Amino acid sequence: KIDGDRLWDSLMEMAKIGPGVTGGNNRQALTDEDAEGRALFQRWCEEAGLIMGLDQMGNMFARREGTDPEALPVYVGSHLDTQPTGGKYDGVLGVLGGLEIIRTLNDLNIQTKHPIVVSNWTNEEGTRFAPPMLASGVFAGVHTQDWAYARQDAAGKTFGAELERVGWKGDEEVGARKMHAFFELHIEQGPILEAEGKEIGVVTHGQGLSWTQVTVTGKDAHTGSTPMHMRRNAGLAMARILEAVDAIALDNAPHALGAAGHIDVYPNSRNVIPGKAVFTVDFRSPDLSVLEAMEARMKTEAQAICDRMELSVEFEKVGGFDPVTFDEGCVTAVRSAAERLGLSHMNIIAGAGHDACWINQKTPTAMVMCPCVDGLSHNEAEEISIDWARAGADVLFHAVVETAEI
Amino acid sequence: KIDGDRLWDSLMEMAKIGPGVTGGNNRQALTDEDAEGRALFQRWCEEAGLIMGLDQMGNMFARREGTDPEALPVYVGSHLDTQPTGGKYDGVLGVLGGLEIIRTLNDLNIQTKHPIVVSNWTNEEGTRFAPPMLASGVFAGVHTQDWAYARQDAAGKTFGAELERVGWKGDEEVGARKMHAFFELHIEQGPILEAEGKEIGVVTHGQGLSWTQVTVTGKDAHTGSTPMHMRRNAGLAMARILEAVDAIALDNAPHALGAAGHIDVYPNSRNVIPGKAVFTVDFRSPDLSVLEAMEARMKTEAQAICDRMELSVEFEKVGGFDPVTFDEGCVTAVRSAAERLGLSHMNIIAGAGHDACWINQKTPTAMVMCPCVDGLSHNEAEEISIDWARAGADVLFHAVVETAEI
Ligand SMILES: NC(=O)NCCC(=O)O
Ligand SMILES: NC(=O)NCCC(=O)O
Repeated sequence: KIDGDRLWDSLMEMAKIGPGVTGGNNRQALTDEDAEGRALFQRWCEEAGLIMGLDQMGNMFARREGTDPEALPVYVGSHLDTQPTGGKYDGVLGVLGGLEIIRTLNDLNIQTKHPIVVSNWTNEEGTRFAPPMLASGVFAGVHTQDWAYARQDAAGKTFGAELERVGWKGDEEVGARKMHAFFELHIEQGPILEAEGKEIGVVTHGQGLSWTQVTVTGKDAHTGSTPMHMRRNAGLAMARILEAVDAIALDNAPHALGAAGHIDVYPNSRNVIPGKAVFTVDFRSPDLSVLEAMEARMKTEAQAICDRMELSVEFEKVGGFDPVTFDEGCVTAVRSAAERLGLSHMNIIAGAGHDACWINQKTPTAMVMCPCVDGLSHNEAEEISIDWARAGADVLFHAVVETAEI
Repeated sequence: KIDGDRLWDSLMEMAKIGPGVTGGNNRQALTDEDAEGRALFQRWCEEAGLIMGLDQMGNMFARREGTDPEALPVYVGSHLDTQPTGGKYDGVLGVLGGLEIIRTLNDLNIQTKHPIVVSNWTNEEGTRFAPPMLASGVFAGVHTQDWAYARQDAAGKTFGAELERVGWKGDEEVGARKMHAFFELHIEQGPILEAEGKEIGVVTHGQGLSWTQVTVTGKDAHTGSTPMHMRRNAGLAMARILEAVDAIALDNAPHALGAAGHIDVYPNSRNVIPGKAVFTVDFRSPDLSVLEAMEARMKTEAQAICDRMELSVEFEKVGGFDPVTFDEGCVTAVRSAAERLGLSHMNIIAGAGHDACWINQKTPTAMVMCPCVDGLSHNEAEEISIDWARAGADVLFHAVVETAEI
């Protein structure tokens, strides 16, 4: 069994870097805070006797040798970057849970046949640089590295330039590594496990995502002297499209979600009718055909709204992944571990995207989930209990050690 | 008659300062560009033999002496600040049109009994620091100076600190000046004069404004893992309120306008359901009871929308002025001038707010309007013809000289 108190202390220590405003974290990808968090993780890995590898996307790989020189490593990990108003556990639990496995193996003096590698994947959140899971996506061959380097944040800075600036660009070719399996521990970020009273979610699938950035173009004009019928109000068209997005998601219930988290109007002046609105529609479903139908219907309705209002509209796909089915063997390893440990568990579909969703294309993969209070995540108030963290890391430990073979 | 070419050259010269992106201007109040525009205006005033006064709100007063030491000055002017994507004429025409009057009087060697003062009022647009017409409002005693100094821009900088920084804070007590009358020349910013084929608008009234900043508070949460029924989506509530604002304005047609130009959601991340939305509702009407009824209905409907969605909502009045009736004598002076000059004219209600609306509380006031192409303003493509500018300045010249007495 892992040491829950040690894991918790490390979580609290990491949370001191890039503190949020109300108790959470703001440690967005490739900021100075991200760099500081990485340095702390590296120090801990070195103290645990691990050898750090760093690839050209800034992905970190801390390796514990195995006894069989031929055996491929078992990977564990998640991400250390956060949302602008993010929690202390989203991603971090998976990275530091992986480190805790190593510390426990060291304590117990256990050697595994396969090496074990703890990974920190760059820019998982996708807030600063869309899309999410950018670096694990390049690792899995979903995106090219050049394309990833060219992703820009809101200030126009590129991923590539920021990776160099913070000093976390390595030499290693991205995706060259061969893997035996990958396991990711993550908080659920939804309310199901807590509501069902289960300690462990055995993640069998991940739902798909579609991000469409919508740009509505109208005409800047004076709010005080432009007659109502002459207005080309891009903000009002946006409002109507947001209402449509909600209706589309509700019409596809229960396996469909829709909202817009990113909204900007221009010039954003109180007495100027917005001449432009730019916002991103986020649809999710575990069913690819539902996902595609929602995106298509949104575009049709948005086009109709804008035609009626004599505005123009453009769509750009800025992120997306298809629903994922995780590896049966790895999923079984997670379920067996929970059973062996006497923990209550249930099958669950990951609502959010995770690095595991891409790595699943490279190697057999599964995820372990633990509950979070009120299902709340992407909020500084995100909370879990130490018991949930301990149970999740214990299951991860058992599944990994079984797969890495003693 | 004034010199239209000289006026036009000055307009084009001023437009070089704080150029916009597509041919207009970005010379927002108390930026370095505003300071540069002020310096150019001051130089031109000094070249025309005027003495510059500067008050503690940064209002500029360039004085040409009269022949009667007892006579109070006739004021003319408007503002040099612009919207972030503003035009070259909004405000500027009134300031440089005032200067052109002085240059013409100098050319013709005409002395007036009353002094004539050309004024540039600080922060008319209200974009950077709400409310609009801030400094003329302090001058008229509508706002206190301390309150005005504490107004903040989006970056949290105060009006007072920025006024000091750009070096345009004077010693003169604000509003201490006694005035004989005030005339403001301005582009219409709406489509009526052009549509009616009139060269001059005789402004009899100004419509009222109500700015309510609405803050909807929900709960940041993950767009991928939060079930639809558990969402507290402040962005969606905002969309519904924006639709209500449009309906309220249309229901009160024809003498009512409504829109929101300022919209921000937080944390503005693609995969976070907005936990907060802040936006400003702009209602206008020449009828105070309609204005008040629209504001009240918006609050009631917004409250109902938020109650239904289990969100909270707060309202803050961030700007407003009642409908204005301009001085009969001054209005008649404008109309007579247009008639004397053989210019086509009609009575008109100002759609936008103007410094004249506040100064009207201090001294007899009127406005001269000239058409603008397609009624477009608060847009870099704002355009007028040199003939319209000349006609407007000619009317201003005649009305001012008649009032200042030869
Ligand atoms: N786990 C997580 O929050 N990932 C971010 C990508 C997404 O929006 O699903
Ligand atoms: N003239 C003008 O655009 N004034 C700004 C204040 C308003 O929004 O009416």
